[in-house]
Amino acid sequence: MYYSYFMEIILTKNIEGVNTPKTLLGKEKLVKIAESAQKMFIKKGFYDTSIRDICHEAGVAVGTFYIYFTDRLAVYRLLVQSYKREIKDVLRDAIIKESSRRDKERVGIKTFVKYVYENPHVYDIIWGSLSVDKKIFKDYYMSFAETYTKHLSECDEIAEFVDVETLSYVLMGITNFMGLKAMFEGEYDDAKFDKLVDVYVMDIIEKSIFLK
Amino acid sequence: MYYSYFMEIILTKNIEGVNTPKTLLGKEKLVKIAESAQKMFIKKGFYDTSIRDICHEAGVAVGTFYIYFTDRLAVYRLLVQSYKREIKDVLRDAIIKESSRRDKERVGIKTFVKYVYENPHVYDIIWGSLSVDKKIFKDYYMSFAETYTKHLSECDEIAEFVDVETLSYVLMGITNFMGLKAMFEGEYDDAKFDKLVDVYVMDIIEKSIFLK
Repeated sequence: MYYSYFMEIILTKNIEGVNTPKTLLGKEKLVKIAESAQKMFIKKGFYDTSIRDICHEAGVAVGTFYIYFTDRLAVYRLLVQSYKREIKDVLRDAIIKESSRRDKERVGIKTFVKYVYENPHVYDIIWGSLSVDKKIFKDYYMSFAETYTKHLSECDEIAEFVDVETLSYVLMGITNFMGLKAMFEGEYDDAKFDKLVDVYVMDIIEKSIFLK
Repeated sequence: MYYSYFMEIILTKNIEGVNTPKTLLGKEKLVKIAESAQKMFIKKGFYDTSIRDICHEAGVAVGTFYIYFTDRLAVYRLLVQSYKREIKDVLRDAIIKESSRRDKERVGIKTFVKYVYENPHVYDIIWGSLSVDKKIFKDYYMSFAETYTKHLSECDEIAEFVDVETLSYVLMGITNFMGLKAMFEGEYDDAKFDKLVDVYVMDIIEKSIFLK
């Protein structure tokens, strides 16, 4: 997660338990703590990371933490929001060049699979939110599904019979599990990502898989 | 999770960190501890549950725990294995009545979605394993995918072009995310499950969703 995403989120979103300071110096200190928390959560897990660990990593006093955050959960919320923004940006930048919805989906799936392959801790943070705070997990996917459904509804290239809300979950499910497949198998290069998504996944999505 | 699944697993599987006793009394005590651990993990989460909590719930001395398990992780492994067995049984019993592969998949998806809707803590235990021990998570899905791929390969009703291993992950992804959708939305009854899977999901799987 880049510095700029944390900054963008604290400037544009009101996150429960996060107290955004008015000065630039304060904002920078808050982001520094968030970056350190991210590093420690990935390294030791949410439950084994204390506020003391985070402050030690960030080089700030424990009291400083409480100026910006009510608890570890508040930092976690900021982390998940920042990842959501980053993932949406990465996907938007990738699909903007494509003209058909079919190609937008194909490139979107491939971009996400490559992104989580290179950043496998995204699963730890986002799916890990299930055991940290179910509300974070639910909000993440419901909000993602809502935006996805909106995009699918607005285009005129999806067949009439499709329930676009169900489709948004189907596509998220396929994408997430392709990410798992690649992560489990390892040794993926561009050619392998292309084959997995452009051929295997798109064939399954577009054609009838059953002979009878 | 039923008593019998824990018993079946300790009798048929060798699980790291689990020491299955020879006497029936010992086996029953082990299962009692596993049941109590399950209850506490669901209630308080893995990280906030101590071995002391588990033993208190089970009504045994802490020393007794260590006769059967090396640590909390060993109980967690037993739990995940038991859920895997239960899920496979539930699915097998449901699809055995169906004759075509299409209907086996349709009924399998619906059965899983209903099962997790009624047992939402299954996500906590299985996806939660990501933050407890990644190996448990990876083994769970790779072994599930392997069995699924085998079944899909052996039937003669899947189109030639399909990469069945990819298909197994696609179907697991769709199924898991339909479970999330139902869990998030709530208020599902049989008619709603039927519509979601028999109509919406099957239409997406079987027909071409893109107009161009």
